[in-house]
This record gives sequence, C-alpha cells and structure tokens, in this order.
Amino acid sequence: MQPQHLNAPIGVFDSGVGGLSVLRAIRRQMPAEDLLYLADQGHVPYGSRTLEEIRAFSEGITRFLLAQGAKLIVVACNTASAAALRYLRETFPDVPMVGMEPAVKPAAERTQSGVVGVLATPATFQGALYASVVERFANGVKLLQSTCPGLVARIEQGDLDAPATRAILDDALRPMLDEGIDTVVLGCTHYPFVIPLIEEIAGEDVRVIDPAPAVARQVKRLLDANGLGRPAGKRGEIRFYTSGEPAAMQSLLPKLLGEGGLVRAVHWRGNLALEKA
Amino acid sequence: MQPQHLNAPIGVFDSGVGGLSVLRAIRRQMPAEDLLYLADQGHVPYGSRTLEEIRAFSEGITRFLLAQGAKLIVVACNTASAAALRYLRETFPDVPMVGMEPAVKPAAERTQSGVVGVLATPATFQGALYASVVERFANGVKLLQSTCPGLVARIEQGDLDAPATRAILDDALRPMLDEGIDTVVLGCTHYPFVIPLIEEIAGEDVRVIDPAPAVARQVKRLLDANGLGRPAGKRGEIRFYTSGEPAAMQSLLPKLLGEGGLVRAVHWRGNLALEKA
Repeated sequence: MQPQHLNAPIGVFDSGVGGLSVLRAIRRQMPAEDLLYLADQGHVPYGSRTLEEIRAFSEGITRFLLAQGAKLIVVACNTASAAALRYLRETFPDVPMVGMEPAVKPAAERTQSGVVGVLATPATFQGALYASVVERFANGVKLLQSTCPGLVARIEQGDLDAPATRAILDDALRPMLDEGIDTVVLGCTHYPFVIPLIEEIAGEDVRVIDPAPAVARQVKRLLDANGLGRPAGKRGEIRFYTSGEPAAMQSLLPKLLGEGGLVRAVHWRGNLALEKA
Repeated sequence: MQPQHLNAPIGVFDSGVGGLSVLRAIRRQMPAEDLLYLADQGHVPYGSRTLEEIRAFSEGITRFLLAQGAKLIVVACNTASAAALRYLRETFPDVPMVGMEPAVKPAAERTQSGVVGVLATPATFQGALYASVVERFANGVKLLQSTCPGLVARIEQGDLDAPATRAILDDALRPMLDEGIDTVVLGCTHYPFVIPLIEEIAGEDVRVIDPAPAVARQVKRLLDANGLGRPAGKRGEIRFYTSGEPAAMQSLLPKLLGEGGLVRAVHWRGNLALEKA
C-alpha cells in the first residue's frame, strides 16, 4: 500500500448514486479535498445480496479506491456499512474508514413527542446494526418504520420531485404523522435527495435528520487526527466511477450534486474492480 | 429423472410474486392441475444480476421443481426467460418448458394508431430477446418504453392500488398517452396485478395486453402434445415456496391470487435450492 498523503483524495462508495448525498456534505465542509466516488450500479441494489457478496464487492471497491491513492474510505451506503464495515476495518487496518449508521441516537435525544419515524431499506431494518442501535439508543422512544418501496429506484432515475416520488413518501409518512412523529431519520443515503419533498409533506414542525453532515464531520475529525487533512486552497477535484452506465450517471450529477463531471466506467473481473481501458 | 406423469404438478417460478399472474391464468384454464410455485425472493430483483447468476438460479430452481415431480416448467419471469430459457432447454432437453417474451407481436398486429407502449424492467429492455422481438415484429409501429421505476417494489409489497402505485403508473403512461398509444404491452409478470389501475389511467380505448393467458394456453398445448394434461376432475392443489420470507408472501396470496395457501421456505446451498427442514 502506498503511503497516505494529505494531498491524496478521499474515496467514497455506494451501490448507486445515494452516496452522493454524503459526498456533497464532505465537499461543503472540506472544499479543498480531492474526491473519488464509485457507484456500484452494476450490482445495485445491495439489499437482496448475501453478506458474503456485499463484503466481496466492498473489498473490491476499497482496493480499487486505494489503488487510486485514497487516504480515507467512506462507506456511503447503509447496507454496505451494516454488512461490511467491520470486515473492511479488519482487512485494511491501516486505512481510516467512516461508515453509516441510522441516526436513531440523535433522534431519540431530540424528540419531544417521543415518536420518531425511520425510513430505510428492508436490508437495513433486518440487519444486526439497526437492532443494536435501537437497543442502545431508542429507550422509551417509539420508532415507526417504513421501507418506502420504490423510492431508491425513483432516486436512481433522478425523479426527485415527480408526483410518483411524492406519492411514495406520502404513503410512508402519513401514517407516521397520524401517530405524532416530530422527527424523521433517514436511514439510506439515497433519501437526503428528497428532503425538500419530505419537509413539504411533513411540515415545518417535523425535523428531518440527514446523517450526511455528521458523517462529513467524522471524516474531518479522522483526517485531522491522522494529519491527513488537505490545507485550504483551491477547490478540489472529483473523479466519478460507475460499474453501471456512465452516461446515465453523468446526466444525473448536476441535479444530485449541483455540479457535473466526467463519469468513468469500471468493470468487475471476479472480485476485482478495474477501470475500463 | 423420474418419469413424467399426467397427475404430476406443473412447476412455475419467478424472482418474486410476479409469476403468480401467470399461475393465476394457468389455474383458470386448467383448474384440475396441481401446481408448484417458487418465488426466489432471496434474490429479487434479478434485473441487476449477471447472466451467469440468473442461469445458475434458474437451473437450481428447475432442479428443485423437478425433484418435487414437476412435469413441465414455466419460467414466469421475463428477466429469467431472456437470460436463461435457452440454457434451461439445453440443460433439461426432456422437460417441456414455457417462458415469457414481451408481447410486441400481438400489439403490433392490433394497434390502429401505430403507437404502442411497452412497460418492462431495464434488464428486459437491454436484453437481446427484446431487441430480437422488436426487430422481427415491430415493423412500422412506434414503440414507447418505460421502466416504471419502483413499480415492482410496490407490487412485491402488495400495494396494488395505493396512491404511490397509481402515481408511478401515471408517470409512465401520461407521456405515452400524449403520443397516442392505443395498446400497452406488459413486459414484466408483476404488472398484470395493476391492470385495473392501468385501465383507469389509460381509459377504455387503450387495450392492455396481459401475456399470462397466452402463456397458459401455450402450457396447455404443450401438455396436450405430450399427453401430460390432467383430466378434468377435482380442483388441483398449489404448493408455494419462497427463498425469502414465507410469512410475508403468505399474507399477499389472497390479494394477488384470490386464494390463500401455505408458503414453505427454501434456502440456497451453493447452487442448490433446498426445502428447509
């Protein structure tokens, strides 16, 4: 492994475009950092994969990002974090890593009504990480859960405010609002892209917890602790990769990220992610 | 392989509950037949899997259904048919098989306006089977395509008439209606469950082509040709299997099929599908 350097990029990955919500937050807090983003759209969604598959994909992507010089890895996918983060930390003990976990703790601390809505994928709700977070932090707070069927598919298409996207959220949130939620936890990195819609439906008295800014702060802390933060200066560059269709992802970047960029193709050969020639 | 017998069951499989639309049509046309249905919900959706994976799943399921005595196999999934039907026919040359293909031919024959809408998953539109069907049968007819993002996920949840399901269809169909379609092809076995919604949105002048009855007729022809049709008599039995959550699927059966039943669990061990003890 090459030595990590403060001018090296931060590597971020997700099964699709959801992790761009985390990349965006990192970009806002650390604009001088160079960034790598890999969307494993050839395997999206991860939710129906076995633990072994998700670990193999996550390891292959991490190796790819490290080969591009990444100094820190952000697992910007709740499913991959639950399935593979511990495995990645064991496999790459020298690499600083940050992952996602459902923000049940801050929600439980802040709720006044004692009723919190959690939006996440079925894989996240079924996983041990969620059960552990609930057990440790939810005490006394009533959690209402919805998997928002179809929402990830709409966001992967860039449908951030189409009537269908609104209807999916309306379906998920109405019963929660009827039960008195005052806080909504976004347990999937795709969901921050529809915060405007969620706020419209839920009204201004309901607080929506986007985990991305807290994850970006954790990235900053970890970089600083390792002396790896890039000094303020000119704006960093972003390199995008997908194992799916580069053109499709490229057309979504301005809408999701507020800036465009070239998307490069990677392909899988066995457990190796390789850049296409 | 055991000898096929006219009292043996027909084996039907899909990645999820979509193939129940085909099972339902078979049940209507051949009520005396015993039926096996396997939903590979542990792997749903197939759309993001490689050809090799889909072939391995389809072969494992076919072996499982044959081991339960199936006399004919119905690949009640457009993705699996496109990826694996030819492979299955080569692997099991003595087993009568029926698969799905998008009903572009009957649509092209019947359309008056010359504009036809096709609803299918991305995997189906990208596959060679669809390209071949379009090349052979669409001549002169304008085909408008939509992948209905999120629709399969809603139907897997049993949301057949929720506002969100309607909105997804509305999103897909409005632009097609504006362009003058008079025919809609359902290129995914999940979609017949929302025909009432499609008809509500599209109006009575638009004809919706559900492939299931034609597939059931093909099953009947193949049984008759092989002397394997069960004589009319008492109503046949259905055995359901899933590699996902039996309770979740069981709760959907009355809504999707109009009759209930016990759902048994199967699990995958390597490339073998096995009934859980």
